[in-house]
Amino acid sequence: MSIGTLVLLRHGESEWNASNQFTGWVDVHLTEKGVGEGKRAGELLVENDVLPDVVFTSVLRRAISTANLALDVAERHWIPVVRDWRLNERHYGSLQGLNKAQTKDKYGDEQFMLWRRSYDTPPPPIEVGSEFAQDGDPRYAGIDVPTTECLLDVVKRMIPYWESTIVPELRAGKTVLVAAHGNSLRALVKHLDGISDADIAALNIPTGIPLRYDLDDDLLPTNPGGTYLDPEAAAAGAAAVANQGGK
Amino acid sequence: MSIGTLVLLRHGESEWNASNQFTGWVDVHLTEKGVGEGKRAGELLVENDVLPDVVFTSVLRRAISTANLALDVAERHWIPVVRDWRLNERHYGSLQGLNKAQTKDKYGDEQFMLWRRSYDTPPPPIEVGSEFAQDGDPRYAGIDVPTTECLLDVVKRMIPYWESTIVPELRAGKTVLVAAHGNSLRALVKHLDGISDADIAALNIPTGIPLRYDLDDDLLPTNPGGTYLDPEAAAAGAAAVANQGGK
Repeated sequence: MSIGTLVLLRHGESEWNASNQFTGWVDVHLTEKGVGEGKRAGELLVENDVLPDVVFTSVLRRAISTANLALDVAERHWIPVVRDWRLNERHYGSLQGLNKAQTKDKYGDEQFMLWRRSYDTPPPPIEVGSEFAQDGDPRYAGIDVPTTECLLDVVKRMIPYWESTIVPELRAGKTVLVAAHGNSLRALVKHLDGISDADIAALNIPTGIPLRYDLDDDLLPTNPGGTYLDPEAAAAGAAAVANQGGK
Repeated sequence: MSIGTLVLLRHGESEWNASNQFTGWVDVHLTEKGVGEGKRAGELLVENDVLPDVVFTSVLRRAISTANLALDVAERHWIPVVRDWRLNERHYGSLQGLNKAQTKDKYGDEQFMLWRRSYDTPPPPIEVGSEFAQDGDPRYAGIDVPTTECLLDVVKRMIPYWESTIVPELRAGKTVLVAAHGNSLRALVKHLDGISDADIAALNIPTGIPLRYDLDDDLLPTNPGGTYLDPEAAAAGAAAVANQGGK
């Protein structure tokens, strides 16, 4: 049995993508544009004949809805679903809920980019019990809910999950869709492509465009960097992500 | 650990409910009304504080979409999901795709009601390879796809699945949502309430209204017949189901 196909999908535009707020673990809805991106992702799966056999999602609505929309369009709404918090977006600590442009103005470019893209420096922790904290949320019952995370923290939860739970499905020859978030997918791409701690800062993943990885028996990509199913839209989308914090 | 709570939910109105066609295993979409019913079901779960910990669905879109809509409204979109063909609607054989009123006119009341409500007489089998048959559908790979079913056939696939897979979740104390179909839910209700083969013919389950069962340690309902979370709408809905075949 050869290794199956991996497809990564960052959720479509969310309400807080649109309003330029740090989101993290806050469970916001997709915008109408995001709904359209989810459906378009499903069309791209069909057009490229990449039909998932199983889907993994975070426990956040924007990833779940994106997967539901894409799979419904692709006539794969019936496949098995696995949801896990370890696919969640990075927890953005006390930045959750803040406007990105205002945060950049207030703290300056250097501090802003450090919080957004430093590999191992998390933002200040969110206050327990505050409006955008997740303590007490029933979906995290029994887990030690973080109060902030850097990308390294995401790597530490995402990669063991990848190895224990997602890889076996690929080794069984399945096409696996992972519907998740900018930073949980950056953590995985860093691992797959062997990107350094420094270089990962420059990698941006656009919303709503399936990214296919073909893996060899050692789970190394035979198409390093993966293949976006709509390369032109992906380039434009990645540039837009890089530009966040602008007004 | 006491037995958890069981909630049954028949999908909202589908396109073929609206056009009065026999549907069975044909994978039709919800209508706008059906989408509204799914969302309303979610509100009813919240209003009655019946929040599912796990959801079981068939592999048919109208049940999957109804569950997605209800759970999103109820803020339970993140719970574990299990899909299985054994929760599917009854396969309607060669009747799949036919208009119910035309069928009634053509074959007469007696034959019509026999096909719809006989416990152990299936309709004529669907022709393999015909427009509304399911042979070759990838979601049924590895299973012996039926070409017709009576309610007894549904009981034979549904109840073993109930016992092996759903009951353990209830015994673990969970609130379990089963989002399925008129006849797979009738099969389960027949089993739970000990309804005779003859009497089950008169039982109709309305679309989109959660039906709660509280079970004792022997899995017998302490509220026989269950409790609809919107009893008035349920009574009206059941009457409408009973009247299908009218014009």
